[in-house]
Amino acid sequence: MKTLIKNGTVVNSTGTAQADVLVDGETIAAVLAPGSQLLGFDVESNVDTVLDASGKYVIPGGIDAHTHMQMPFGGTEASDTFETGTRAAAHGGTTSIVDFVVQYAGEQVLDQFALWHDKARGNCAIDYGFHQILSDVQDSSLTAMDELVREGVSSFKLFMAYKGVFLSDDGQIVKAMQRASDNGSMIMMHAENGSVIDLLVQQSLAAGNTTPYYHGITRPWQAEAEATHRAIMLANLTGAPLYVVHVSAKQAVEQITIARDTGQNVFGETCPQYLYLSLEDQLGATSEEWGDFEGAKWVCSTPLRSKAEGHQHHMWQSLRTNDIQMVSTDHCPFCMKGQKDMGVGNFAKIPNGIGGVEHRMDLLYQGVVDKKISLERWVEVTSTTPARMFGMYGKKGVIQPGADGDLVIYDPNGHTSIGVGKTHHMNMDYSAYEGFEIDGHVDTVLSRGKVIVDDNQYLGTKGDGEYVHRGLSQYLI
Amino acid sequence: MKTLIKNGTVVNSTGTAQADVLVDGETIAAVLAPGSQLLGFDVESNVDTVLDASGKYVIPGGIDAHTHMQMPFGGTEASDTFETGTRAAAHGGTTSIVDFVVQYAGEQVLDQFALWHDKARGNCAIDYGFHQILSDVQDSSLTAMDELVREGVSSFKLFMAYKGVFLSDDGQIVKAMQRASDNGSMIMMHAENGSVIDLLVQQSLAAGNTTPYYHGITRPWQAEAEATHRAIMLANLTGAPLYVVHVSAKQAVEQITIARDTGQNVFGETCPQYLYLSLEDQLGATSEEWGDFEGAKWVCSTPLRSKAEGHQHHMWQSLRTNDIQMVSTDHCPFCMKGQKDMGVGNFAKIPNGIGGVEHRMDLLYQGVVDKKISLERWVEVTSTTPARMFGMYGKKGVIQPGADGDLVIYDPNGHTSIGVGKTHHMNMDYSAYEGFEIDGHVDTVLSRGKVIVDDNQYLGTKGDGEYVHRGLSQYLI
Amino acid sequence: MKTLIKNGTVVNSTGTAQADVLVDGETIAAVLAPGSQLLGFDVESNVDTVLDASGKYVIPGGIDAHTHMQMPFGGTEASDTFETGTRAAAHGGTTSIVDFVVQYAGEQVLDQFALWHDKARGNCAIDYGFHQILSDVQDSSLTAMDELVREGVSSFKLFMAYKGVFLSDDGQIVKAMQRASDNGSMIMMHAENGSVIDLLVQQSLAAGNTTPYYHGITRPWQAEAEATHRAIMLANLTGAPLYVVHVSAKQAVEQITIARDTGQNVFGETCPQYLYLSLEDQLGATSEEWGDFEGAKWVCSTPLRSKAEGHQHHMWQSLRTNDIQMVSTDHCPFCMKGQKDMGVGNFAKIPNGIGGVEHRMDLLYQGVVDKKISLERWVEVTSTTPARMFGMYGKKGVIQPGADGDLVIYDPNGHTSIGVGKTHHMNMDYSAYEGFEIDGHVDTVLSRGKVIVDDNQYLGTKGDGEYVHRGLSQYLI
Amino acid sequence: MKTLIKNGTVVNSTGTAQADVLVDGETIAAVLAPGSQLLGFDVESNVDTVLDASGKYVIPGGIDAHTHMQMPFGGTEASDTFETGTRAAAHGGTTSIVDFVVQYAGEQVLDQFALWHDKARGNCAIDYGFHQILSDVQDSSLTAMDELVREGVSSFKLFMAYKGVFLSDDGQIVKAMQRASDNGSMIMMHAENGSVIDLLVQQSLAAGNTTPYYHGITRPWQAEAEATHRAIMLANLTGAPLYVVHVSAKQAVEQITIARDTGQNVFGETCPQYLYLSLEDQLGATSEEWGDFEGAKWVCSTPLRSKAEGHQHHMWQSLRTNDIQMVSTDHCPFCMKGQKDMGVGNFAKIPNGIGGVEHRMDLLYQGVVDKKISLERWVEVTSTTPARMFGMYGKKGVIQPGADGDLVIYDPNGHTSIGVGKTHHMNMDYSAYEGFEIDGHVDTVLSRGKVIVDDNQYLGTKGDGEYVHRGLSQYLI
Ligand SMILES: [Zn+2]
Ligand SMILES: [Zn+2]
Ligand SMILES: [Zn+2]
Ligand SMILES: [Zn+2]
Ligand SMILES: [Zn+2]
Ligand SMILES: [Zn+2]
Ligand SMILES: [Zn+2]
Ligand SMILES: [Zn+2]
Repeated sequence: MKTLIKNGTVVNSTGTAQADVLVDGETIAAVLAPGSQLLGFDVESNVDTVLDASGKYVIPGGIDAHTHMQMPFGGTEASDTFETGTRAAAHGGTTSIVDFVVQYAGEQVLDQFALWHDKARGNCAIDYGFHQILSDVQDSSLTAMDELVREGVSSFKLFMAYKGVFLSDDGQIVKAMQRASDNGSMIMMHAENGSVIDLLVQQSLAAGNTTPYYHGITRPWQAEAEATHRAIMLANLTGAPLYVVHVSAKQAVEQITIARDTGQNVFGETCPQYLYLSLEDQLGATSEEWGDFEGAKWVCSTPLRSKAEGHQHHMWQSLRTNDIQMVSTDHCPFCMKGQKDMGVGNFAKIPNGIGGVEHRMDLLYQGVVDKKISLERWVEVTSTTPARMFGMYGKKGVIQPGADGDLVIYDPNGHTSIGVGKTHHMNMDYSAYEGFEIDGHVDTVLSRGKVIVDDNQYLGTKGDGEYVHRGLSQYLI
Repeated sequence: MKTLIKNGTVVNSTGTAQADVLVDGETIAAVLAPGSQLLGFDVESNVDTVLDASGKYVIPGGIDAHTHMQMPFGGTEASDTFETGTRAAAHGGTTSIVDFVVQYAGEQVLDQFALWHDKARGNCAIDYGFHQILSDVQDSSLTAMDELVREGVSSFKLFMAYKGVFLSDDGQIVKAMQRASDNGSMIMMHAENGSVIDLLVQQSLAAGNTTPYYHGITRPWQAEAEATHRAIMLANLTGAPLYVVHVSAKQAVEQITIARDTGQNVFGETCPQYLYLSLEDQLGATSEEWGDFEGAKWVCSTPLRSKAEGHQHHMWQSLRTNDIQMVSTDHCPFCMKGQKDMGVGNFAKIPNGIGGVEHRMDLLYQGVVDKKISLERWVEVTSTTPARMFGMYGKKGVIQPGADGDLVIYDPNGHTSIGVGKTHHMNMDYSAYEGFEIDGHVDTVLSRGKVIVDDNQYLGTKGDGEYVHRGLSQYLI
Repeated sequence: MKTLIKNGTVVNSTGTAQADVLVDGETIAAVLAPGSQLLGFDVESNVDTVLDASGKYVIPGGIDAHTHMQMPFGGTEASDTFETGTRAAAHGGTTSIVDFVVQYAGEQVLDQFALWHDKARGNCAIDYGFHQILSDVQDSSLTAMDELVREGVSSFKLFMAYKGVFLSDDGQIVKAMQRASDNGSMIMMHAENGSVIDLLVQQSLAAGNTTPYYHGITRPWQAEAEATHRAIMLANLTGAPLYVVHVSAKQAVEQITIARDTGQNVFGETCPQYLYLSLEDQLGATSEEWGDFEGAKWVCSTPLRSKAEGHQHHMWQSLRTNDIQMVSTDHCPFCMKGQKDMGVGNFAKIPNGIGGVEHRMDLLYQGVVDKKISLERWVEVTSTTPARMFGMYGKKGVIQPGADGDLVIYDPNGHTSIGVGKTHHMNMDYSAYEGFEIDGHVDTVLSRGKVIVDDNQYLGTKGDGEYVHRGLSQYLI
Repeated sequence: MKTLIKNGTVVNSTGTAQADVLVDGETIAAVLAPGSQLLGFDVESNVDTVLDASGKYVIPGGIDAHTHMQMPFGGTEASDTFETGTRAAAHGGTTSIVDFVVQYAGEQVLDQFALWHDKARGNCAIDYGFHQILSDVQDSSLTAMDELVREGVSSFKLFMAYKGVFLSDDGQIVKAMQRASDNGSMIMMHAENGSVIDLLVQQSLAAGNTTPYYHGITRPWQAEAEATHRAIMLANLTGAPLYVVHVSAKQAVEQITIARDTGQNVFGETCPQYLYLSLEDQLGATSEEWGDFEGAKWVCSTPLRSKAEGHQHHMWQSLRTNDIQMVSTDHCPFCMKGQKDMGVGNFAKIPNGIGGVEHRMDLLYQGVVDKKISLERWVEVTSTTPARMFGMYGKKGVIQPGADGDLVIYDPNGHTSIGVGKTHHMNMDYSAYEGFEIDGHVDTVLSRGKVIVDDNQYLGTKGDGEYVHRGLSQYLI
């Protein structure tokens, strides 16, 4: 299968080019000056398919480096399977995800890794890699880290929150960081002070403050800023690179900024929800259907932050200044009915998570339209940096010969209306971004050379997606 | 003329690719998967020239955005003409320069611009653009700024030092910045407090401290940090983007870092001399030939800084953290005999400047070898960012279809010995980097598709280089 | 004359004591446990006067270290003479001022010093010292600095604004700082970038923006933050202590904070107007009488700042954190009629200045009531630190044996209404604080042991006040 | 008993006075102008004792706010009893201590408080107060906090290190802070990350690194900076004032500085050992007697820091800039024989602590001689601020009527040689400051009006010292 995408504007993280892209089989074969001639050879007439991208952007497929498909959590499971979640991702112009293998305390890391392979294998619409979650850091976990690096898993996530579930104590974190420092892998951190949060939650419930709004109130910015600094100090001590997931507080960004200014390998990820949504507007929302439980739709951790405090504004700025390096979704969807509603009367029982894997590329593109980030920065934070950060660059995150044919034709003159019954392929009974309007549109999506989405139609097959064997980070300084 | 560079490792600012590069005429026609076949078409047999880059890097030609060819200064003139200087640049893998049109107080900007065109036209080995220096900021200068933007000059340099020669007062600076803010151009700043320096120089001479060493002592870091902050505040007031040239003091970097962390469009350039050389080792040097006047070889402004204070170390770090964005040479060569020696007995009469246009790519590559910066960062700070910063990207600074065929084949297994009588094509009777050994080598240099240097031989012709009509900066956030 | 102040709460900068204060002649003889017995000796019956301070505070007399009595400026003269101004000060609990001897370019410093002595001698109600203003820094000025230190003038004020009037260029500033560094004196700085301001003023007037509001607009915070950093760098270079007068922008405070955190001797003074008044409310005010010229009442430099930007809030905080060390008034009164009104139609012609010498102690005490500063801090910023900063401590600024009997009995249960026709002894036809209500009252004021104000009555005589021969700063670290 | 100290230079935290001090009974009755006459009354002839302080300083008695007399720790007990320790303190010019009541997990706070009263009562040479240590924070502990405030204990110490011994988890810390925020008390924090340290210690021992030097290596600055920031964030969350004990790392100071610059009530204490001693010189020392176990003499936590990293230099600077507010000793002595030697072959078994209660006033005075701090600052950091910080001011920390007659006559022309067999009254078989020479001398010490030390002789009686019922902090902003 040979495909030529012609007449488009190819966008990469430093700028644009008017160029045609030739995909031969699964791989990009050439990037060519526009026009169907190469030294007299008529390229166009020698391919199977020609996609006309006139007036459109041709970008490397989106990479969502933070998803939780069918993740078991709080007695239920994230509502998107690898099948439904990756298909939704494809619709939104994302052609790779990196999902999290879960290891709870007492479980064996490699067993879990095998289990997650089983869940994903043969089910995905797009390529997928894995990060490994470590909760207790057993001696066998440290050995497993080396093994996993060989298996293409070069990043390990630890939690400073969720005591008794995921939380590692600081000594355990240091042990994992020491190993990462040795084997070159990346430590990812959920940076919130769980001990403080657990107390505040108890006190809030005891005081009768039980609605979703209090989910936000009981996870104050101090708990995030504190844990972020702590993680940075532990990383500094051990020499491990540190990637802080889902940063939402401006004070946490400030800690990352300070560390980065000294040359430490510290990185920050944010998510569309922290750019667009807030404590006041979402967690504090009410509706006819759900009353003051409406906010449950946006219960995730770290929580949505107060717009009065200006976090969202600062997060966009940090994205511009590269104090935040990339944007993932932390896609972890739960339906209101039967899942989120477990927390009626007790916000602490609401499964934590927001689904967004489908909308990241669009939501960030709207930032381009609104002049919050540049076109190049859009590609950088959604594809190029994720690829580099997590050892996929060359195959992913860039349009160049030898790279996988993961490509999106994006129409800046198109339009996308987000919402249930409009664009909504995720397995959720609501949309966290209901009513958002995007001044752009994902027209065509290729995964390793195959058109899997075109004109809003899914043309792929379950199992198209393959496992991505990742290398070490290519983003370290 | 069709040229294929095959089997090389193409390096860009985000990573590498194994790819062939096809240049058709002056322009890159395609970047292709290695091997001579494209959909069955044999590329190699359809080109005029094949360059084998096996085991070598293929990079976009270097861009030196800060040179002063045959610049009149202090009663003499920089010793490299546009002819000799650009030829030396070509030898060193630099395929574009941006030189400074000088306007002294009372002169008309557009007249000077025309004059500089006359100097350069037909003489250059490589492409050249212009920045415009403004000294007094006359009303006609402001009008000229708009005109020059249309003429492809989108950056204007002002001086906070050299009273009576170049210095603009703060009100004049603000006027120029206001215009830049309006027309989208960039303000470049020589940021040193001239009033303070003039006093210290007088006092030093009066005290009998007349050797080159005191050139450094009388331009203390406070004078640079001060002016840098001042420039940042004026830029903040007016909204103009600010590019601080030849940053050498770590405290000046700190000011830039703080401003950048707030999202202000402030950029810093450093030069190889500030990365490698020091007050103690160079300005304080003695030799049999020159005695304690030896240091005159390295008299430039901003001056070389004390290594005891750690500036050099910090400058490399800032280059890694992107607090400094790019590296130019501030190439402004003077011979010791007949030029620098005007300052024997009075350092203030030593013409200010160091020649380095030939060695920047090598010196920075040595930073890759020494693990001070990454391979990608090398390309970024020497080519990609200069192109973006000064509105040349797309044509320059990147290897992609439609870009100029400005390419360098760089051999990481080669070796380069810097020094007079070794590699030294600049018109200087000494080398500022005498004795430096580089673990790499510029093998072949193409300028707009033509091989102009190969195997240390200059194959080009005077006048190959053309004027680069630049656009507005493509690096603003 | 022997006076006992009994039963009061003596307040100093670290706390309070229940104590009696005995003044013998001009000097404090003892601080005693309350009650009239000392080892059986009945103190009370051996004094001439007993003042009962039950339920009241006894504090060291206020020191206003920044006043401009009958200062020639802009073709007129500040409306308070040494006589009227110091009498007003006395009413407000201030028992010492430090006024500025003016030297304009071309004038001789020592001549001016003699002239100012003539103006003040025999006219003052309270003690007075002098700072010396330097504009051009002639060689004779440097010599005069040493002479003046011997004469009790240990602080020299320079201006970075008012070109052609006061402004010293940076080289001149460095010269004065070098001398101060040698002789141990203090450099005071009016830190605003005059060159920028002059341009903005011209542009504003040319654009038809001529009302007092534009006085504020044309002196933006950047001009103050810039000059403050510049002054700090020059002081750093020379080793001179630096005291920045009338700090009003939070960004300027930030520069001071950064410098102080490194251990540099940098100090900041603010004034009541920057704590209480704003660009919006005062400079932008209108009235029936004056229309949009009403704001002229508050035209001073640095200007009142925008409350939307939060400067006032930050200034109080800085006073608490000791990033700002003390509060003076910059008392420089002009009447609206015949003085301020010279600027109708052109804000640049409005004489710059606000009168406030009478109200500083009250206005700051209100900060205690409003819990913005502590009681001890009130005494510290209005008396103890001014005394230490400017070499008067021991005689002034403290209640201890040997100190001058400069004492204020302040009633926390009293009340003061500020305004013309209420409390208003300054020679101004309006009050800058009209309508302010203070929850406290200056009951009795002693100057060197003599009661000069009691129950709102002035009991002193012209010429009571004597010249204070100051020593070097006692506040340096 | 009436005592007159005549002709001395009284030093307080803002300056000096030539004054006589009259003590009547236990209390200061008056501070008088020098000379024996008050309004004709001859004071000198009406007192029992006259102490001539000509040429000497008269200062408020030292307050050591951090001691551990006979503290049970690690299977042994600090070697100074309340009797021996306070007597040694008296010799060194310290007239008050605040010691720590220990509560281990499971114990009842009020029981422990009673127990400590029993230990101290009737045994002390000088006045003593208590801080209360909380380890687990039981509900009864929270109630006890309120009770203790009423009992004169207004400060509560928590530990982030010593797991299983003292460590409180972050939720427990927040609970205590919430209570402190309510009742106005102060939270004191041992800020080191115990979890990390425990791991590093295990790893060090496992690697065979068992000497005292590794005590320092396994408690890296990151562990202190981390915990300090964490404590600050938790305090910020709850509004509690925070006092960080024994700060030794410059990076920890930096956290305190940042917090203070925002106006948060955060305070830092350092100790003489962190000003004078280092990892390299002391922990790494060897001796004939002890070999490489010599360093055990200086095993304390936080540990001595590397002088190559410049902590000591920075600590003196922070003392000048008031980023560190006061100096205590953390007096916790253990003998080498029979106590410290439990850790031969395993540094983790060395009882943690250094004895220094006797030498603090002298060691800090040497800082005055060496021009590291001013004379006033000496008094402030050793007496006035401790009194204010911990609610004793008025009675302690100041020379004013009504204050306790706790006074020291200090001779700047005297000399003190520190060392066993020289000045050494602490119950330790070595001196941590052996060989230090001090250019000053504690001549006479009065405790509540009684001379307890004179001319190196102890003149007091066991039990002279009384319990100090403290109030809330008088140092909050
Ligand atoms: Zn997640
Ligand atoms: Zn320059
Ligand atoms: Zn930064
Ligand atoms: Zn230059
Ligand atoms: Zn500070
Ligand atoms: Zn003034
Ligand atoms: Zn401790
Ligand atoms: Zn302790």
